[in-house]
Amino acid sequence: MIFRLGDLAELVGARLYGDAATEVSRVDTLQDAVAGSISFLTNSKYQKYLKATSATAVILKDSFRQECPVNTLVCDNPHLAYARISAHMQPVPESQAGRHQTAWVSDSAVVDPTAWIGPGAVIEDEVNIGPEVHVGPGCVVATGVTIGAGSRLIANVTLCHGITLGERVLVHPGAVIGSDGFGLADDNGTWVKVPQLGSVSIGCDVEIGANTTIDRGALCDTIISDGVKLDNQIQIAHNVEVGENTAMAACTGIAGSTRIGKNSTIGGGVVVVGHLEFADNVHFSADTLVTRSFKEPGYYSGNLPAMPNREWRKTIAHTRHLDEMMQRLKELEKQVTTLMAKKGDEA
Amino acid sequence: MIFRLGDLAELVGARLYGDAATEVSRVDTLQDAVAGSISFLTNSKYQKYLKATSATAVILKDSFRQECPVNTLVCDNPHLAYARISAHMQPVPESQAGRHQTAWVSDSAVVDPTAWIGPGAVIEDEVNIGPEVHVGPGCVVATGVTIGAGSRLIANVTLCHGITLGERVLVHPGAVIGSDGFGLADDNGTWVKVPQLGSVSIGCDVEIGANTTIDRGALCDTIISDGVKLDNQIQIAHNVEVGENTAMAACTGIAGSTRIGKNSTIGGGVVVVGHLEFADNVHFSADTLVTRSFKEPGYYSGNLPAMPNREWRKTIAHTRHLDEMMQRLKELEKQVTTLMAKKGDEA
Amino acid sequence: MIFRLGDLAELVGARLYGDAATEVSRVDTLQDAVAGSISFLTNSKYQKYLKATSATAVILKDSFRQECPVNTLVCDNPHLAYARISAHMQPVPESQAGRHQTAWVSDSAVVDPTAWIGPGAVIEDEVNIGPEVHVGPGCVVATGVTIGAGSRLIANVTLCHGITLGERVLVHPGAVIGSDGFGLADDNGTWVKVPQLGSVSIGCDVEIGANTTIDRGALCDTIISDGVKLDNQIQIAHNVEVGENTAMAACTGIAGSTRIGKNSTIGGGVVVVGHLEFADNVHFSADTLVTRSFKEPGYYSGNLPAMPNREWRKTIAHTRHLDEMMQRLKELEKQVTTLMAKKGDEA
Repeated sequence: MIFRLGDLAELVGARLYGDAATEVSRVDTLQDAVAGSISFLTNSKYQKYLKATSATAVILKDSFRQECPVNTLVCDNPHLAYARISAHMQPVPESQAGRHQTAWVSDSAVVDPTAWIGPGAVIEDEVNIGPEVHVGPGCVVATGVTIGAGSRLIANVTLCHGITLGERVLVHPGAVIGSDGFGLADDNGTWVKVPQLGSVSIGCDVEIGANTTIDRGALCDTIISDGVKLDNQIQIAHNVEVGENTAMAACTGIAGSTRIGKNSTIGGGVVVVGHLEFADNVHFSADTLVTRSFKEPGYYSGNLPAMPNREWRKTIAHTRHLDEMMQRLKELEKQVTTLMAKKGDEA
Repeated sequence: MIFRLGDLAELVGARLYGDAATEVSRVDTLQDAVAGSISFLTNSKYQKYLKATSATAVILKDSFRQECPVNTLVCDNPHLAYARISAHMQPVPESQAGRHQTAWVSDSAVVDPTAWIGPGAVIEDEVNIGPEVHVGPGCVVATGVTIGAGSRLIANVTLCHGITLGERVLVHPGAVIGSDGFGLADDNGTWVKVPQLGSVSIGCDVEIGANTTIDRGALCDTIISDGVKLDNQIQIAHNVEVGENTAMAACTGIAGSTRIGKNSTIGGGVVVVGHLEFADNVHFSADTLVTRSFKEPGYYSGNLPAMPNREWRKTIAHTRHLDEMMQRLKELEKQVTTLMAKKGDEA
Repeated sequence: MIFRLGDLAELVGARLYGDAATEVSRVDTLQDAVAGSISFLTNSKYQKYLKATSATAVILKDSFRQECPVNTLVCDNPHLAYARISAHMQPVPESQAGRHQTAWVSDSAVVDPTAWIGPGAVIEDEVNIGPEVHVGPGCVVATGVTIGAGSRLIANVTLCHGITLGERVLVHPGAVIGSDGFGLADDNGTWVKVPQLGSVSIGCDVEIGANTTIDRGALCDTIISDGVKLDNQIQIAHNVEVGENTAMAACTGIAGSTRIGKNSTIGGGVVVVGHLEFADNVHFSADTLVTRSFKEPGYYSGNLPAMPNREWRKTIAHTRHLDEMMQRLKELEKQVTTLMAKKGDEA
């Protein structure tokens, strides 16, 4: 499909510097762009590709406009404008309705006639599937699950019994929602399972990444609020609550009963221990270990980043002698104080 | 179902302070309890909810009894009592037997008539499935696998060829048991695969979390002993041995040939490198990197926990200059010793 | 099957010290070897088992030969020789062709007659499957995927639409290739999805571990080059490029648009942030956080490894006071300089 720059600028509220009638048909990065591409500059690391780009137009901030050799769409948030324009330029995927011959759907399930149940999918008893839901191949939807309108399970997703998905939820392959929480009571060295009787409640407009796992609550529900975005291989333990519009990068784990606030961002590989509580607008850097609650909005970090191995070995050795270092420092302070005092006496 | 407090106290050996004939029908947290709920206090973080609870009875330690406004079941291990009472109060799930019309079972598989093979499940050749085993939807049980009595694969579980599960093993969705270990030999810059010819042996009463992976051994077997509990997204590499009743929290990885002892606990996000060996009763905090064997029982930790980002930047900068700091400290010590000696000469 | 030591030595170019006609039929570790076993010594941690081994022959370096009580195959790279001999001694698994009665294959898919489509597998429209490909039970191969000759998907693998696998690629259960990248644009606190229009290109001779996830690119493709080996539960984000013959251990995550070089090794549990670029032959230790590009080949590390908890608590406390420590050190230096100066004046 073909789009005019004037229409695209209008769509996202950008100021167009160039010819409104010029047409583009694809989105590309600055370095891969060709004639007919619209491109964007959203990260200064890629500024070096701007001058030589073959794009027909570039979405960028005003501060980069002078540097750009081609038509520009100028706005304050080029990343957002790029997202909107890219979505606008894609053809809407054709929607299917009905069920594949190899799917199995329980007689007691209620499936909206506009929903699609794909090859090899399993829909168990008393499931409720809303309009325009897409259940991809190999998905398992267990007894009593509810899926809101427009939600999509891509493939091989498992929704355990009784969980609830809101509307327009997107779940990527291999994700598991509603597995038992890790509840164990210690009986003199052997473990007794604590029944996991709660469920999982997923809000609307949530995205759940590939192979991410979200456990059901022990008694109350695990709660993922509206607009939350979870990347791949995230682990959400039982009774966690994640506030609206919070985004987490891949490989992060949140331990049981912790409450993450709204509009927060959690980097990849973060570990948050259990029973903590956070303010809204809290941001954790990648690979941070979080061991206590932070009640103030802000940026928090931990961990010692990579350095050459030889330097690291020395650093770790010194770190392990910090207590001794501190003692030696204190001893020196005492001695210097004595010396200074004598000095004073002499003076 | 309805239960009398006197019967529940007797079940778990608790002392009842209150009316033995009082009835409860559900388990709830202190803050969500209603009339008819039995609740519990197992973590002092939730003590604040005790006084205002609407529960009919609370399971707790003697030290909290005076503070509790309602009937109490007093015992030394309220968490265990809660687990037992909660399990007792749940109706036993109805067991199915036979196979779903969409399951595929090889003619050479031996499946106990009391076992259930769910929708879309695949049972390959020479599999042996014991009494009251539950194979959920979408599970793949490959050639030669043995599953002991009462074990349950929830859904979309993969058991690779030849592995063995003991009795009453519970495997959550997406778990993979028996994938190839990561064995590679370096042939001048390209990798040659080392055949992974061992298997995986899972003991009895083991629980394996969602999307957890356990690799088969290179020559001998990977061994998960009786009573081991593994949370979600754990990675157990080839030839690892995990001792009885050890529990690991989510997102932990154990590298090849490492031996974890009995009755140990491993926090979430821990990384243990290969070829190590540990005593029994070893405990690692969340997100710890373990690079050497610990032969003494005890608690071990690593990592630098989260702090405000500005503070962290300073801390990391100083950490990188620890070597210089140490040199400056040594220089000072020399100078002060000289000064002190002169002082002595003067005196 | 039975093999003569002389033939095995010749196969791998080892020098045989012993009887070329002696026969072996199995491979075992030094400690588990029996008469008829060929064993190997590749890690000095296992040297202690050499003297008492019951193996018939041992593959080792020349430096260990004198210590070995039995026949030896001496070479410079015993690990490689063991890998080759072990592979040579295994019977080739019988290959199947055709499709299982419970598989579903779209009419528009092109499947080579020598390929196998296993039970419950789903092959969607316009898929192209090459000769001797093995698609195991429960695998989903989405629209437009291409799989090169000799590749194997073990079970429950998901290949998303349009991705490309080279030849002889081995994919373990639960892996997901081609899920959407985590692209979000911030619209005043809510997230707008950035369409993920790129694909994933997997080279030849790649191995992909259980439950590993590889996201499709936002615009260009995510690229996994020839000979790359990925362990279990690895996360590769959108637009990452991994150079030839690089190997990554389990639980590692690479954030978006980062370029990993050739012939690199990345330990388990490593987190590499986005938009970085690395030289070839870069090696990261287990559980390292990588926050900047390294342009020089070499070994890089981070993180504070496990120590007894009491020691760790002290260390962390001191670490948090490093700034104060530095101030006190500077103050001392000033005072000592003053004292030394006076001393000089007095002299």
